[in-house]
Amino acid sequence: MAELKNRQWLLAARPQGMIKESDFRWNEAAVPALKDGQILLRNRAFSFDPTQRGWMSMDTYIPAIPLGHVMLAMAVGEVVESKRPDYAKGDLVQGLFGWEDYTLTDGRGLFGMQKLPPGTDPLLALSLLGVTGLTAYFGTLAVGQVKEGDTFVVSGAAGATGSVAGMIAKIKGCRVIGIAGGRAKCEWLTAQAGFDAAIDYKHEDVGEALKRHCPKGIDVYFDNVGGEILDLVLARLADGARVVLCGAISQYNQAGMLGTGPKNYFNLILHRSRMEGFLVFQFAQRYPEAIADLVKWFSAGQIKNQIDLAKGLEHAPKTIIRLFTGANFGKQLLELK
Amino acid sequence: MAELKNRQWLLAARPQGMIKESDFRWNEAAVPALKDGQILLRNRAFSFDPTQRGWMSMDTYIPAIPLGHVMLAMAVGEVVESKRPDYAKGDLVQGLFGWEDYTLTDGRGLFGMQKLPPGTDPLLALSLLGVTGLTAYFGTLAVGQVKEGDTFVVSGAAGATGSVAGMIAKIKGCRVIGIAGGRAKCEWLTAQAGFDAAIDYKHEDVGEALKRHCPKGIDVYFDNVGGEILDLVLARLADGARVVLCGAISQYNQAGMLGTGPKNYFNLILHRSRMEGFLVFQFAQRYPEAIADLVKWFSAGQIKNQIDLAKGLEHAPKTIIRLFTGANFGKQLLELK
Repeated sequence: MAELKNRQWLLAARPQGMIKESDFRWNEAAVPALKDGQILLRNRAFSFDPTQRGWMSMDTYIPAIPLGHVMLAMAVGEVVESKRPDYAKGDLVQGLFGWEDYTLTDGRGLFGMQKLPPGTDPLLALSLLGVTGLTAYFGTLAVGQVKEGDTFVVSGAAGATGSVAGMIAKIKGCRVIGIAGGRAKCEWLTAQAGFDAAIDYKHEDVGEALKRHCPKGIDVYFDNVGGEILDLVLARLADGARVVLCGAISQYNQAGMLGTGPKNYFNLILHRSRMEGFLVFQFAQRYPEAIADLVKWFSAGQIKNQIDLAKGLEHAPKTIIRLFTGANFGKQLLELK
Repeated sequence: MAELKNRQWLLAARPQGMIKESDFRWNEAAVPALKDGQILLRNRAFSFDPTQRGWMSMDTYIPAIPLGHVMLAMAVGEVVESKRPDYAKGDLVQGLFGWEDYTLTDGRGLFGMQKLPPGTDPLLALSLLGVTGLTAYFGTLAVGQVKEGDTFVVSGAAGATGSVAGMIAKIKGCRVIGIAGGRAKCEWLTAQAGFDAAIDYKHEDVGEALKRHCPKGIDVYFDNVGGEILDLVLARLADGARVVLCGAISQYNQAGMLGTGPKNYFNLILHRSRMEGFLVFQFAQRYPEAIADLVKWFSAGQIKNQIDLAKGLEHAPKTIIRLFTGANFGKQLLELK
């Protein structure tokens, strides 16, 4: 094979406060030769996820990305060359790849590598049927234990995971209230996504609105944002409530990673409630069941898959910043040209 | 019956910061006449519990004690007069009574009223076999879900609930580390209560000591104190950890009730762990099973019942303050003369 040029974004600096474009460095390099057991992928699309902020900063559930290493991302690529008997040219593969044209991988690591059925839409694979949808699924059902009649509140509700979490709770018979930033997002939640109510945290008093929309308290809170909103929810828990900790995007860019803890956590005692964190990988054995449900609901029109699509590798740094300014509307993806 | 004089302590002020003796007011009154359905008790002993700080301050799981009302306490009394067919003179009764010689009650309310088997030691009933021991039992087993081989950490470890929680975890095959204030308490934990290790928070670097004693992380944390120690534990969770929220005594006397939230709560996500509050009443249906176990373990010498005993109604205000200065060693009780 002729030598391929690989354009890529390397991690140039650990982010201080908000992620900046200068935290990444553009690079062009030759693609190294394949070894046995490896495949070479042409990346087709990248997923953008708040958890990437953690990978850039420090050891989390995976080691911190080394400085000078290609920026990592969940991605779908197409096999262009294979030294593995189980992967052939043209196969679509999902896994933890990088911000580059070509990725050489053996598929090891926490995320593994999954071959997609032929004809799969890479954008659907990276959103509803990927980590995003699976996180919403297990967070709502396995951790949140939603049941019919529950009052379900989700923050980051117009985001990729939050919107799917709310729609799943709705399918399960909950009253669903979403918290999102801005009138357009809130209108989408009630008019399109089927939420019972939406709270615009940029223009409303969230504590007051929660009181109005949740007169009997909150049974399940799916938290994507942390910070002040988490505290306001803790102040309105119903007895036996479940707080599902999915993320804390309001806090990721604070100095020292986390600014403040939830002052009202003591309400967990008074309302005999729990707050539980999870990582989607712990449910890996149940992915097939989840994907089957998600496909069924998507096909029946019960779940909408809202995608915010950027295009072109060169725009990757700008695109990740959208997550943290709240500019994205639905799942943020980037398609390579 | 001749008119009885009732000496009592009334709630005079909502506590600001640390409870003060002046938050209570001494009163002497005649005992009112009994109505049908009521019994009159001569109080024999009072329990002192951190949760009383909440009752004095605000509505919690019971309404705030009204100013001018007798101070409430879990207590054991002996029936001196009864207008109920199911209670007779001489019966020993446990319930939510008050800091007074005589309590007139119909036994209603969240705590109900339980007749004790004849010959029961009121001090044992108010400690190991009362709310204290039951809280330790359900917190450790039902909420903490301890299993053999777990590393179990408890704060307030020389306190009434904490010490019993640790001894139960030990019976279940955990490695048990207690956090307590002062060398004498720590020595008691390892030499008498059978703990594997004790950390003296007054003289040791707790974070460093946790690292040394819990090299594989903490599986279950039974939290009685909140505050900084909770944060240090959250920084050392094992995957799948359970944080049992029993109390937050370090915070009860802070301005505004609660000073700070646990900054490291985000580790609940990274270690897919949960933090769960509970109130012992939610397990009321399982009390008989718990009491049977506790009696069995106590009789076998596997659980020691450490009591810190004050005497005389007039010392009740001084005695409750001991809880919050950490002066008590084991379950704080007061026996009426």
